[in-house]
Amino acid sequence: MAPISSLTAFVRDVPDFPKAGILFRDITPLLANAEAFSEAVAAMAEPVLTLQPTHVLGLESRGFIFGSALAQKLGVGFVPARKPGKLPMATFEEPYGLEYGSDALEIHTDAFKTGDRVLIVDDVMATGGTAAAAQRLVQRTGAQPVALTVFIELTSLPGREKVEGLPVFSVLRY
Amino acid sequence: MAPISSLTAFVRDVPDFPKAGILFRDITPLLANAEAFSEAVAAMAEPVLTLQPTHVLGLESRGFIFGSALAQKLGVGFVPARKPGKLPMATFEEPYGLEYGSDALEIHTDAFKTGDRVLIVDDVMATGGTAAAAQRLVQRTGAQPVALTVFIELTSLPGREKVEGLPVFSVLRY
Repeated sequence: MAPISSLTAFVRDVPDFPKAGILFRDITPLLANAEAFSEAVAAMAEPVLTLQPTHVLGLESRGFIFGSALAQKLGVGFVPARKPGKLPMATFEEPYGLEYGSDALEIHTDAFKTGDRVLIVDDVMATGGTAAAAQRLVQRTGAQPVALTVFIELTSLPGREKVEGLPVFSVLRY
Repeated sequence: MAPISSLTAFVRDVPDFPKAGILFRDITPLLANAEAFSEAVAAMAEPVLTLQPTHVLGLESRGFIFGSALAQKLGVGFVPARKPGKLPMATFEEPYGLEYGSDALEIHTDAFKTGDRVLIVDDVMATGGTAAAAQRLVQRTGAQPVALTVFIELTSLPGREKVEGLPVFSVLRY
């Protein structure tokens, strides 16, 4: 495998998206390259193997892309955390503030059982608000959140402070 | 691997979701079971191998889950088709009518190049409106849509008629 540093070449900077002043990190060139995507997933898997997760929780929508591939690589089940109104059965809901705007995430109340070990997966950690909402959702089911894994961590924002007690792993840091 | 027929045990019927009269096929139990999910992805991959796709186009949002895992299994790149306003660069947009409501999909104008062979992936084909929009999007980039692969096909609806000239593969049919 190529060194991790080369993965940055597949991330495209887009100024002022989705609004003025935000520098958006576009991962679509990475996803479109099978080797780079595979390397990113492998780099996300490696540090969490010893945590023995039983499930991946992928956060809608880009967290589905990394989460699904990572769940298959780890050989564990995939559970989606979705925007309100998308899941058909009874749900828990947790609101969160975003870098730009606000929203909420839901999971099925029966998504996990006590004893399940849940790896929370998203593409980017910015403020950590989404990840903290996901952490609360997992806790409400009685399962244990074991770590948060993101492809990109924006270290200028206090994301890690938001997910208290949860190990955070990231592949690229800006 | 267990026979495909056993995968139906992991799909949960939810009447009247998202609105009265719709029988929703909930695939979250399948995704949560690593073996069942892996078997579903393998069943989606098998008939398209000979088409030699160069990319998977996953349709937001549940198409991301199957599309990402399938792209990794096939060893090809993954491209997301997203709801309007989500992609940061220049896009093509195609509207579509749904079984319930209407919406549009976008892809980056530079997502594919001429000669790329694109496998369109979604979780379910109902009316075929979303798939047809995806087919038009791929055609606008100059790439070739080689097939549509879905996990579930609702055969009571005329989905296949909507995607003219495109082979359609499905694992479960209702």
